[in-house]
Amino acid sequence: MASRERIGLIGAGPSGMALLRAFSLAEKAGTEVPEVVAFERQDDWGGQWNLDWRTGADKYGEPVHSSMYRDLWINGPKECMEFPDYPFDRHFGRPVPSYLPREVMSEYIRAHMQDVDVRGQIRFGTAVRWVEKHDDGRFRLTAQDLVSGETVVEEFDRIVVASGHFHTPHVPQLPGIESFRGQVQHSSDYRSPEGYVGKRVLVVGSSYSGQDLALQLHRAGAQHVTTAYRKQPQGVAWPQGMDEQPAVQRIEGNLVTFDGGTSAEFDMILLCTGYLHHYPFLPKELALGGPNLLCPIGLWKGVVWHADPDVLYVGASQQLFTLTLLEAQAYFARDVLLGRVEVPDAEERQADMDAWFTRMTQIDGPPAALAWQGAYIQDLSSHTDCPAVDVEAVAETFLQMRDARIEDVRTFRDRQHRSTVTGTMAVAHHTPWMGAFDDSAEDFLR
Amino acid sequence: MASRERIGLIGAGPSGMALLRAFSLAEKAGTEVPEVVAFERQDDWGGQWNLDWRTGADKYGEPVHSSMYRDLWINGPKECMEFPDYPFDRHFGRPVPSYLPREVMSEYIRAHMQDVDVRGQIRFGTAVRWVEKHDDGRFRLTAQDLVSGETVVEEFDRIVVASGHFHTPHVPQLPGIESFRGQVQHSSDYRSPEGYVGKRVLVVGSSYSGQDLALQLHRAGAQHVTTAYRKQPQGVAWPQGMDEQPAVQRIEGNLVTFDGGTSAEFDMILLCTGYLHHYPFLPKELALGGPNLLCPIGLWKGVVWHADPDVLYVGASQQLFTLTLLEAQAYFARDVLLGRVEVPDAEERQADMDAWFTRMTQIDGPPAALAWQGAYIQDLSSHTDCPAVDVEAVAETFLQMRDARIEDVRTFRDRQHRSTVTGTMAVAHHTPWMGAFDDSAEDFLR
Repeated sequence: MASRERIGLIGAGPSGMALLRAFSLAEKAGTEVPEVVAFERQDDWGGQWNLDWRTGADKYGEPVHSSMYRDLWINGPKECMEFPDYPFDRHFGRPVPSYLPREVMSEYIRAHMQDVDVRGQIRFGTAVRWVEKHDDGRFRLTAQDLVSGETVVEEFDRIVVASGHFHTPHVPQLPGIESFRGQVQHSSDYRSPEGYVGKRVLVVGSSYSGQDLALQLHRAGAQHVTTAYRKQPQGVAWPQGMDEQPAVQRIEGNLVTFDGGTSAEFDMILLCTGYLHHYPFLPKELALGGPNLLCPIGLWKGVVWHADPDVLYVGASQQLFTLTLLEAQAYFARDVLLGRVEVPDAEERQADMDAWFTRMTQIDGPPAALAWQGAYIQDLSSHTDCPAVDVEAVAETFLQMRDARIEDVRTFRDRQHRSTVTGTMAVAHHTPWMGAFDDSAEDFLR
Repeated sequence: MASRERIGLIGAGPSGMALLRAFSLAEKAGTEVPEVVAFERQDDWGGQWNLDWRTGADKYGEPVHSSMYRDLWINGPKECMEFPDYPFDRHFGRPVPSYLPREVMSEYIRAHMQDVDVRGQIRFGTAVRWVEKHDDGRFRLTAQDLVSGETVVEEFDRIVVASGHFHTPHVPQLPGIESFRGQVQHSSDYRSPEGYVGKRVLVVGSSYSGQDLALQLHRAGAQHVTTAYRKQPQGVAWPQGMDEQPAVQRIEGNLVTFDGGTSAEFDMILLCTGYLHHYPFLPKELALGGPNLLCPIGLWKGVVWHADPDVLYVGASQQLFTLTLLEAQAYFARDVLLGRVEVPDAEERQADMDAWFTRMTQIDGPPAALAWQGAYIQDLSSHTDCPAVDVEAVAETFLQMRDARIEDVRTFRDRQHRSTVTGTMAVAHHTPWMGAFDDSAEDFLR
């Protein structure tokens, strides 16, 4: 009898959790599954959702994983992130508002794991140092137990990388930034707004972090918040005390000049410039690189590493659908590993990757981006028994949110949306978001 | 003919630079030297002295190495850090003040390398990922070229670790710190004072970083700066706007209570809680750990790894004498590697380590600590041709500085000291330090 296959899973955030759960459900249904051993640097699962008051280095001196902050509320309605097999109705037992604070969302993700017993497969507090493929085709994974310091060396047949891509900041060299006389912080190091109160703040970047943090600083009492966008204006109706400008052209002391020639003085700069794909434990030939894309380059179906299909990634794509996207990828990865999904030959993989990539390049706005990722999720799920998401309805909900945000960035989180799973309509929160400065689950659910 | 021995050197900061220089001088003097290949994560040598406006992650997503900041001036007189074979008189061509800003000190350290040609031995922008010893006794070092992403695997006969120990912050869990409503920053992420102006700041820690940053924030306009000490009060005459308290007992919101029961409210916390020995590229059996000590545990003569004398460390000790300490260790390491210094058997090494350690435990204050490290430097140098330092005279200069600091923390950097190498007396700076907010070499030397 051949020995049981061994899978090394790197990371036990939402992606790794989804994979462990998918395997466990298959096993419960009578499928023989490989041995999956997960390595997680943190002491608990949950990945990004584990708020850490520290920045820079954690208690072991390892890079802090989470970039979340106090008063982080989800930036899209919860109805866009609902697990079809674990509706919010079941979790909360009653209708709740559409926008959840971090702690509440984190509890939901953890509660989704209730129906499986997989924590024993995870080596917590263990940092993967290096992975290499040997001539016999097996992988040797070297890790360190951060508590004991002991080296852990294990052999695996295949590797799944689920270490996330929101932990290592992309910190671009803005022209003249060395001359800036004030605090420069990347959003990954932002934890609370107090230092920004009364200040003239430049937020560089208008993606998720930039959108949310500009608003957080505004509501906390920054004197003025300017967001510099790279590609196109957000086009929202800015309240007094906020505005947007094109990209930073140069910085001279406290004076910042934007493309087009406008300039203004700032006290602080908050870099919301995104994150890098950073896999320092992988040799180049196995490591995903490039920008954050819906369709990461080099991954067949966004999951299987084209150059070596014994390496899979879960959660490496740019996220619109978030949790349900990760789940679709996790089920797909599981079924590749179980042999239920056949990995075609290189030529066919390349043709498929090219087709998806080409469609991605034709995206002309948020509706098309949502349609792309919806179709992608459906494609993945057509090969697996991943609980089906009504991607059109979710996309519609996202677009409602977007319209509400354009109308008023301050109030869009006070809107309520309907579950695409149960049809339940969300209820208003007890406090308008602009004045909600208690982000505890206790206060939210009172 | 046996092939030339290969030494892998990790780090090209002041310690690695000193080792490369020591080898080069030996070679110029006609000695056959091994091939030394250095791996440096940064794009340039200089280690800590290379100011980086970034915090957290560098442009490659690697942890930022330097913890230095704008307006950092050396915290002891330059006369305590003078290379005997490269006096300040020769470097500057004229007497200059005793306290140098970072850029000027950095230039001095670089200029000391003028008499050798060793940059070609350094692989810049290359991060060491993992080192392991194979059964044949050789080391396999795996690194990554951060620009190309390529993996570099090299075999070495011996390894020298000179990667420093001021890059990975020690961030302790103060009781209740999660409840603090304000910015918490470790000194490694501090770059400039603007965010602290007008604020009530708690500086936790009273070692080098805490001493200097409390003063920096005070002179920049913090409303009040309290320093919490762990072991003993600094006992200096605090100016208005500064004070000190014993250790933090607990934090509740913005209220901090100190041992003894005093409490006060703060807006910001700056953790000057030091650094970890952090060698994530080394297996436990080769990695130095423990606190920052004059006499690090497990290193014979503070240089040779007792458990495996094929591994050496340079610059791993707590530093009082700084540059000349690193140089004494570098020469000693070189001469061990050249076979000029014989490494005794384990029993003898242990006895020697125990003797130094015991003497360290008997240190009862700064004079004794300086005497310990002075004697240690003399011991190392008695085995090598390292240019001799007048350790008693340097210790005396340190103690003069200490007295001046106790008298007035604001003016001690305006004092001048005499070179122990040339006898030259330093001259007054054109601006008292409390008002010197231009730390450029240009302004300093005008």
